[in-house]
Amino acid sequence: MSQERFDELRRRLAEVSDLGKTMALLSWDQQVMMPPKGAELRAEQLATVGRIAHERFTAPEVGRLLEELSGWAERHDYDSLEASLVRVVSQDWDKARRVPSELRAALTREGALSHQVWVDARSRSDYTAFLPALRKNLDLVKRYVECFDVGEEPYDILLDDYERGMKTTEVRVIFDYLKAHQAPLVQEVAARNGADRSGPRTFPLELQRRFELEVVRRFGFDDACWRLDPTVHPFASGTGVGDIRITTRYAEHNLESLFATMHEFGHGLYEHQVDPALERTPLARGTSLGMHESQSRMWENLVGRSRPFWHHFFPRLQETFPDALAGYDADRWYREVNAVEPSLIRVDSDEATYNLHIILRFELEQELLAGAVSLEQLPDEWNRRMWEYLRVEVPDDAHGVLQDVHWAGGAIGYFPTYALGNLISAQIWDRLRADIPTLDDEIAAGEFESLRDWLRTHMHRFGRKVSPPELLERVAGTPTIDPAPYVRYLRGKLSGIYGIAPEAS
Amino acid sequence: MSQERFDELRRRLAEVSDLGKTMALLSWDQQVMMPPKGAELRAEQLATVGRIAHERFTAPEVGRLLEELSGWAERHDYDSLEASLVRVVSQDWDKARRVPSELRAALTREGALSHQVWVDARSRSDYTAFLPALRKNLDLVKRYVECFDVGEEPYDILLDDYERGMKTTEVRVIFDYLKAHQAPLVQEVAARNGADRSGPRTFPLELQRRFELEVVRRFGFDDACWRLDPTVHPFASGTGVGDIRITTRYAEHNLESLFATMHEFGHGLYEHQVDPALERTPLARGTSLGMHESQSRMWENLVGRSRPFWHHFFPRLQETFPDALAGYDADRWYREVNAVEPSLIRVDSDEATYNLHIILRFELEQELLAGAVSLEQLPDEWNRRMWEYLRVEVPDDAHGVLQDVHWAGGAIGYFPTYALGNLISAQIWDRLRADIPTLDDEIAAGEFESLRDWLRTHMHRFGRKVSPPELLERVAGTPTIDPAPYVRYLRGKLSGIYGIAPEAS
Repeated sequence: MSQERFDELRRRLAEVSDLGKTMALLSWDQQVMMPPKGAELRAEQLATVGRIAHERFTAPEVGRLLEELSGWAERHDYDSLEASLVRVVSQDWDKARRVPSELRAALTREGALSHQVWVDARSRSDYTAFLPALRKNLDLVKRYVECFDVGEEPYDILLDDYERGMKTTEVRVIFDYLKAHQAPLVQEVAARNGADRSGPRTFPLELQRRFELEVVRRFGFDDACWRLDPTVHPFASGTGVGDIRITTRYAEHNLESLFATMHEFGHGLYEHQVDPALERTPLARGTSLGMHESQSRMWENLVGRSRPFWHHFFPRLQETFPDALAGYDADRWYREVNAVEPSLIRVDSDEATYNLHIILRFELEQELLAGAVSLEQLPDEWNRRMWEYLRVEVPDDAHGVLQDVHWAGGAIGYFPTYALGNLISAQIWDRLRADIPTLDDEIAAGEFESLRDWLRTHMHRFGRKVSPPELLERVAGTPTIDPAPYVRYLRGKLSGIYGIAPEAS
Repeated sequence: MSQERFDELRRRLAEVSDLGKTMALLSWDQQVMMPPKGAELRAEQLATVGRIAHERFTAPEVGRLLEELSGWAERHDYDSLEASLVRVVSQDWDKARRVPSELRAALTREGALSHQVWVDARSRSDYTAFLPALRKNLDLVKRYVECFDVGEEPYDILLDDYERGMKTTEVRVIFDYLKAHQAPLVQEVAARNGADRSGPRTFPLELQRRFELEVVRRFGFDDACWRLDPTVHPFASGTGVGDIRITTRYAEHNLESLFATMHEFGHGLYEHQVDPALERTPLARGTSLGMHESQSRMWENLVGRSRPFWHHFFPRLQETFPDALAGYDADRWYREVNAVEPSLIRVDSDEATYNLHIILRFELEQELLAGAVSLEQLPDEWNRRMWEYLRVEVPDDAHGVLQDVHWAGGAIGYFPTYALGNLISAQIWDRLRADIPTLDDEIAAGEFESLRDWLRTHMHRFGRKVSPPELLERVAGTPTIDPAPYVRYLRGKLSGIYGIAPEAS
């Protein structure tokens, strides 16, 4: 009998999952393929599919099924589909049912409409044009927060959507550690010469694409399952483990696109390696955005900015761009791609300054939510803090408050997961190196199979079966996000490039 | 009160329309963008969205709203949104509610799965690999037909899905006329020299794409609203009047892609020029496939294979492909693109033989449905008739029974609309030339604005407000599809090229 009820639950969740993947496609298409004049109707399409998904998921019958099945599910193994599905979906349901479907639809609709407004406003660096859309999104987010019992920290509600169970105070403690230990690193290297960058140069876009594909195909990108496309703001998406889509953004004068591609590959691989048995359930994706970001940052930085990686790939890179890289060798290039230089754009920033960009956003988001900073003040406040934290002057809003896609989509509370991902990536990497002693040699040989398999076995396959702390425990041996390994990794790397002390005094 | 009920109807239909456009995107994406391993899950996504759309549309409350509103709606102008929506949707609802949502979902799912099987089987010319998928589709189509009161002609049920109100017997009469009057034309020209085709030559794909875009941009393709992409089987799609997507198929050794692009432009323009006030209703698309095909064939043939068109575009074509077209002038090229030559592939066939390809399919479909031809016999039967009707020998199934996408998607009853479209295009063209006496001169000058405007005003803007015969009456002055103008047009053109008699003896 319970088995039948469980099958009924699965059937209903499969439908919700199909609708969720359909929304992912509607949104990927909007950002990658859709002619601009499709935007208004696309917002309605997204809102309708989103509303129906939300209605079907929060239906009382789903709640009844979950309640009926809870005892039965607990008698199964913790990792079984039965136990995991009922356990995780019960939490999802409790949260989702508090949100009216109409509000959920409005959030989706405004997010989709604002995306197009943002693309346009950013291209003209016109914050005023974006402000009304941003206000609508912020108002909806506030209404969303009010659906819950708000305690001391309304931000907790939002953060939990992206990083299940994480509290604002925990993030604050971690970020305070980074302010105390990572920010000084930036100052230490500021006075020293690291990179020896050549003057303006050109990397033809078609060759960039070819080289990127060469790299990610070595990583595990397979044309039967993956796509790579250009877009305004790189992201990863897809409609199943057999359909993974990553995007990047090309510029002629640098290779940021390569790092964006490796970054999004990391996200894509996490989704691609989820146990296929979880497909058409809400468990078939990464367990949190922080965990996701640990994967993207790992492939982008711990792999893609490492000496062994460039030992293998630099000769091919130089062959591909002989003019731009004349006079370079692997070492000079390694130093350049690891140069520390406070800069304007988060996604292009180096590993040492990146988290500071996040801390700025984390603070501003809380103040916006509390009304301590108004939307009118936001650009000035942004620029002021960029100077305070990074000592850079923001020339215009396109390079300031308009640079990121998230707020246009109503995604507030998302940014901290980027910094958390950096920290987690170093925790995992320590464990990985212990488990695969030959890792550096393999990377230096352009081999990534054991890395990929390790990640699948220890991490990816579980999907959302386990919570972020549970996964961290499995993959790194502790349930707690610890910033120390990341700062240690950073200092170690920068000591080799800038000659600063390899350990903090 | 009725206004409120009407608003409620519109709200419900808007949702169904959003889901329909979402399915269009899922399907476009499957055919144009999706990595192949996404196919299985995509079929589920399509089935889920399709089932929900069908459930919501056939809900008893929609039937009640339509019934309640029928008197109120009739008191409005025939062309008003109120009257049209209630009138047309009542017919749709009566038909749709007879089909169980599960069957509708199964048709969608099998169609999507079979598409991928077909792509693969066609590429290997392996009918046996395709047969099980085709059988599933045919069985489902038979179950679909059984949902209705089947009279003498079960094929009527299917035909009506694509060409509202059209009967199999009417098609048979029209096709008999074509057999009697169009087939002899092919024989008359068979013995004469028309085209003077040069030997093997190459048209680089990137240049083809550039030239095509140049042409359709003159027609009215605008990047803010349109896309053009390559695919296996050209089609037109989109998600709204502001998002029109056409596809084509390139071959290096010919310019069939150009004609496919002009063809799909015709479909796209019809959708693009529907009155935007009809968006998010079931009226916001072409009224039938025959009417649609009249538009695609008009741009492909009546415009794109005309003397005035090549007068304008031939110099640019020759500039683009100087090697391939060395020794050509506009007249020689015009003769070549109008050459009559019985051939294997329907979509690449000339205007004179095209309808014969359709008649073959029309007959086979009825026999499949009746069980008079089995699926095992189908390839042989196909090949036998190709010889009988067109005197061509089919070398393999990829060039025979596997060439078309339709049966893989369960679309049986669709093909006749292609031939009907050819006939309608000539009826409309006669009227157009009378209304715009300068049409030839405008085309020869590369100007298409008044043609486009005429089509919008007389035809496109109505969407599904009017039935196919009503629309034909408005646009061509008669509700009846008449094959005579098409045969007359063809004979006229071929007399200029092959020197046959300009009128039938």
